[in-house]
Amino acid sequence: MIRDLTDDQARAALPLKWGAVAPGVIPAWVAEMDYRPAEPIEEALVAAVRRGTAGYPAFGDAGLGAAFSGFAERHWGWPVPADATVPTGSVMAGIRLALELVCPPGPVVVPTPCYPPFRDAVAITGRELVPVPLDPDAETATMDLAEVEQAFAAGARTFLLCSPHNPLGRCWTREELTALADLARRYDVRVVSDEIHAPLTLPGATFTPYLTVDERAVVVTSASKSFNIPGVHGAQLVVLDPEDRARLLAAPIPAQNAWSVFGMIAGVAAWTDCDDWLAALVDRFDDQRSRLTDLLATHLPDARMRPLEATYLAWLDLRTYGIADPAGVALEHGVRLGPGSDYQPGLEGHVRVNLATSPERLESIVHRLATAVATSAP
Amino acid sequence: MIRDLTDDQARAALPLKWGAVAPGVIPAWVAEMDYRPAEPIEEALVAAVRRGTAGYPAFGDAGLGAAFSGFAERHWGWPVPADATVPTGSVMAGIRLALELVCPPGPVVVPTPCYPPFRDAVAITGRELVPVPLDPDAETATMDLAEVEQAFAAGARTFLLCSPHNPLGRCWTREELTALADLARRYDVRVVSDEIHAPLTLPGATFTPYLTVDERAVVVTSASKSFNIPGVHGAQLVVLDPEDRARLLAAPIPAQNAWSVFGMIAGVAAWTDCDDWLAALVDRFDDQRSRLTDLLATHLPDARMRPLEATYLAWLDLRTYGIADPAGVALEHGVRLGPGSDYQPGLEGHVRVNLATSPERLESIVHRLATAVATSAP
Ligand SMILES: Cc1ncc(COP(=O)(O)O)c(C=O)c1O
Ligand SMILES: Cc1ncc(COP(=O)(O)O)c(C=O)c1O
Repeated sequence: MIRDLTDDQARAALPLKWGAVAPGVIPAWVAEMDYRPAEPIEEALVAAVRRGTAGYPAFGDAGLGAAFSGFAERHWGWPVPADATVPTGSVMAGIRLALELVCPPGPVVVPTPCYPPFRDAVAITGRELVPVPLDPDAETATMDLAEVEQAFAAGARTFLLCSPHNPLGRCWTREELTALADLARRYDVRVVSDEIHAPLTLPGATFTPYLTVDERAVVVTSASKSFNIPGVHGAQLVVLDPEDRARLLAAPIPAQNAWSVFGMIAGVAAWTDCDDWLAALVDRFDDQRSRLTDLLATHLPDARMRPLEATYLAWLDLRTYGIADPAGVALEHGVRLGPGSDYQPGLEGHVRVNLATSPERLESIVHRLATAVATSAP
Repeated sequence: MIRDLTDDQARAALPLKWGAVAPGVIPAWVAEMDYRPAEPIEEALVAAVRRGTAGYPAFGDAGLGAAFSGFAERHWGWPVPADATVPTGSVMAGIRLALELVCPPGPVVVPTPCYPPFRDAVAITGRELVPVPLDPDAETATMDLAEVEQAFAAGARTFLLCSPHNPLGRCWTREELTALADLARRYDVRVVSDEIHAPLTLPGATFTPYLTVDERAVVVTSASKSFNIPGVHGAQLVVLDPEDRARLLAAPIPAQNAWSVFGMIAGVAAWTDCDDWLAALVDRFDDQRSRLTDLLATHLPDARMRPLEATYLAWLDLRTYGIADPAGVALEHGVRLGPGSDYQPGLEGHVRVNLATSPERLESIVHRLATAVATSAP
């Protein structure tokens, strides 16, 4: 069901992930999978091209909201209205629009580590960033709500949530999200929740759509991450308040990062016809998660891996090995990982590992990282 | 060579152009063509999807600049360096980036009528718009350089050029562009030149790339308009100054309207392998232009059509018929046109007609418009 790409196929299929490494280096950095997209998406895209569809998308959302609504109901028991969706070009474009058009001016709280473009989105919309860093020694990767409250009390007006969290792999519990929502209500703070990783919630965890605990939030999501199709350029804001929606829909073309017709077509196919593929994918990630845990126990026993509750990006703390930049030394030993400091400037000793690949490549990734660490440790 | 779409095929292929009209209405409004894209583009896109390419584009421009450079040399004898291209998602996104990152703050001069999102791009970048309207009674549709100079002298810092011009159909002469460049140099004004329609220059006119008369300009272009593929999400800024380029390349992801891998693939195919298709397309437009001229002479003899020197969008002055909104009455008679007031707020009696369709549909378009005018004239 999951169609693995060989190295040659992957180099042809994934120009960013595989094109940015020298031959022989295994790319385990950017969030793309070494698998072909699901067949229903592939067929929908080929059919679109064959019938001459390469033009502007229709007015409206071409069924994207209804398709997402069906998906949300089947997977999360969440009856989100079909008309809550506003299409956009990408999740980051949607976050920018939410900040510019829905959220009040004022500082933006961002738990860190975070997906690096979050910081850029805050900066280009002229907001001040208030990072709430996770203590890397904390037992559990949770939000420090006392610190969040302090930021709200000091004037922050927006909270930028990543749920589930990249790169921590956390799937926030309903209790955690409810506590955040209570604070947001108390201080009249808008929450923007990036839920692009939600379909990839792994066995053992339960995803809670943030809008079910805070109906004033703006959700931004896309099928692009879970279905390995960021190139199709389609994403969506999910907004319950009609006035907020009207404000987003009124954004003029140059502000829109206008979505592609392919994004709508692929998104509808993904939300509608790919449940089996997604189930197989989650099985694969569940396997890869165990495999990574075992491999680390054998080859890097002092590595600490945060429990991976969702998505395919594992967060490793290698500080006990005494190497400031383990991704840097790993690259010299044939594997490209995400440096922890990309996600939290100044953070040493951490890496993000992409396990959306074959079991064999995952073994090589850990072997190479272990060799790198062994040769470079002080 | 040009593969016409039947009505049913067009409705399936062009969800915006055909989806926004009731059955039976001929859409001659938005700038899309009732033809299938060129075969080399179609095959390149299908091959990409089949090999699993739906992910992020590579770092760099994936050969887009070199492909454009070849096209510019073959078609316009313009030796533009391959590394002058900076990819972006769409022309309007590129114009926004140029205004934000390259052009100094200060008012922006825009000749009107203009492509409506030009006004939005000026507004969302916080600039003041200084329209320089064309007198609809002017003999020739040219820029009033005295008025432009006045605006420059009064403090405007940017000039937003559309070359060739939508909706006037003008292909500016080298003399006109040189005069504008002289003024821009004199007043230290940056010119942003949208050249998306340039490949569609028609027999009798010669396209002059604006960078050949003013090397400080920012050109924004794309294969999307000439090759009927706006859905692929790929465009390019063309900038000769390395510092300007570096500023554009440094824009973070959420500011980028990041381009799609399909945009790069389709763009390279268009600039490289579609010269024959483009020649056939230009022939078709040349025919349609004569046909429209003849049809108007017969059915709407008092209509004034601006000479169509480039592109497939004809600008008609119907004021002698005494109807304020001819597009409105045309719609009631089965044809959707672009209302003149969309391009120049307050302008009465004008319409934009899209002739990128079959000869038969073009005849119906004019018949219906003539009937609408005859029934509605005071
Ligand atoms: C949390 C998060 N948000 C957004 C994105 C990017 O989404 P897009 O390409 O639609 O902007 C990613 C990509 O990895 C991500 O991890
Ligand atoms: C002059 C001009 N610029 C830009 C565009 C739109 O280009 P894009 O969709 O790449 O923003 C058009 C579309 O018709 C146009 O006529």
